[in-house]
Amino acid sequence: MDIQAYLKERRELVDLYLRNYFSIPIEPLILHRAMTYSLFAGGKRIRPILAIASFEACGGNAEDIIHYAAALELIHTYSLIHDDLPSMDNDDLRRGKPTSHKVFGEAMAILAGDALLTEAFFMLTDNSSGYHFLNRGKGELYKEIKPSSLIRVIKDVAFSAGMHGMVGGQAKDILSENSEPDSETLASIHLRKTAALITTSVRMGPLLAESDETTLNALTKYGKYVGLAFQIVDDILDIEGSTEEMGKKIGSDQKLKKMTYPVLFGMEKSKHKAEELISAAIESLKRFSSEADPLREIARYLIKRRA
Amino acid sequence: MDIQAYLKERRELVDLYLRNYFSIPIEPLILHRAMTYSLFAGGKRIRPILAIASFEACGGNAEDIIHYAAALELIHTYSLIHDDLPSMDNDDLRRGKPTSHKVFGEAMAILAGDALLTEAFFMLTDNSSGYHFLNRGKGELYKEIKPSSLIRVIKDVAFSAGMHGMVGGQAKDILSENSEPDSETLASIHLRKTAALITTSVRMGPLLAESDETTLNALTKYGKYVGLAFQIVDDILDIEGSTEEMGKKIGSDQKLKKMTYPVLFGMEKSKHKAEELISAAIESLKRFSSEADPLREIARYLIKRRA
Repeated sequence: MDIQAYLKERRELVDLYLRNYFSIPIEPLILHRAMTYSLFAGGKRIRPILAIASFEACGGNAEDIIHYAAALELIHTYSLIHDDLPSMDNDDLRRGKPTSHKVFGEAMAILAGDALLTEAFFMLTDNSSGYHFLNRGKGELYKEIKPSSLIRVIKDVAFSAGMHGMVGGQAKDILSENSEPDSETLASIHLRKTAALITTSVRMGPLLAESDETTLNALTKYGKYVGLAFQIVDDILDIEGSTEEMGKKIGSDQKLKKMTYPVLFGMEKSKHKAEELISAAIESLKRFSSEADPLREIARYLIKRRA
Repeated sequence: MDIQAYLKERRELVDLYLRNYFSIPIEPLILHRAMTYSLFAGGKRIRPILAIASFEACGGNAEDIIHYAAALELIHTYSLIHDDLPSMDNDDLRRGKPTSHKVFGEAMAILAGDALLTEAFFMLTDNSSGYHFLNRGKGELYKEIKPSSLIRVIKDVAFSAGMHGMVGGQAKDILSENSEPDSETLASIHLRKTAALITTSVRMGPLLAESDETTLNALTKYGKYVGLAFQIVDDILDIEGSTEEMGKKIGSDQKLKKMTYPVLFGMEKSKHKAEELISAAIESLKRFSSEADPLREIARYLIKRRA
């Protein structure tokens, strides 16, 4: 399969949905601008695409869950805005553009993040918007999502984004700066800061498709392995990538003396570990046939990416 | 009825639930400490109590929705932590104690806020925790909350806390500093920054009790009037109260040249407006008999409070 074409198509669907969702400006305009500035700064939409690919692997259609998948991108975007703040990683560039607080000031950057996080949960409660934007009648394409499944998804998202997941991981990450690296702390940071929300993205598919628990468990494993590999590749690119490719200052992890995989285990061992994780991710999909090919190809793509 | 005793009892129930919920420390401990520091800084628990009183007015028991009601306090607490940040209102004191960023630093204060907001949505998806903490079996007291009602509540909360509500209101509030006051902007700030989440708190009762739309509409009106009055009284207390009573620096609104009711209309007219709103709130409860007495007394209490 042509994974580049697949990723492009799904990314365009996510972008179309998000563009439409934020097409009506809200007051104050500067808040709306700050939210959309970061949301449309060229993100790869990996999390929504993983949710869609996983839903498709469970027999669903992308359009049926586009609004739930898109909500994941709001959470990811909020986390980038807050991570970049002067009191956190103090980054001036993100995806080749000045970071939110550089353009809108700190107060508006914090509020834009808060608003994106909150709006994600609003999106997750809306079981009609996916259709309105495609101008399709409910009768035509409407797949009823069970309210109890939706609650399970919201619970998953809140758990993986909050103190047990992403926020807790970011707090540990900040505290780890300048401290002696150890593999247990590093694994916990990666698992919570990155892998948790990626796992949730993948789990969204089987949860909304009401798949059985065996399917859910297999995809949960896939998500965890892919999430961990994704973070290791990010750490490698922070050292090896060029500023142009990455769109942010390279070596910023080293500058902050962050605990990363390459720092702890060296470059070769890190690459090997990432490859192992990708193999394990693909292995967890063995019960699926061709319907999971996009998930397999995404895993292979994530390790080969250059940005 | 003895409203002081009523408020004390309900506040203690909310505190008991929250203490229990946060009794298991999470890693990193400093994040957990930052979250609980602000959560247990002496808040009056007005929003959870309004949700409980409103659920009781619709025939329910406080214990049945304690976890949903408590989630509102997490959102309120997060908003205070972020509002106090140096880049926002730059407050050093809150409820007589140093603000979060003064104690834990800016990064941890931002993350504590993010974590509290996210955890609120996790709490809202949990339909068992209310019972575990009271050591009661599900069979004994369990009131099944319909998943579709819960989704409507989560939607309400996300809408009133996000860009259309609280976050949007805070953004407008910050932008209004030093600008020419006008009554339309002021009303919009009050409505979104304070009244929206208070209205949602009151609506939680009828939504979870599955009351009819007429009941829901009456309580929505009550919430809006009470929420607006609450903000006007806050603005009055910022000028008239003593630092000791308020637990924060008095006159900070004036220092920041914020747009407030007393600045725009003077003290007498502001007090009169608050009284009018409280009367209107009580008037919206006319279809209820004694089961809504706590709501009536809370409205009267809110205008008489000194802090």
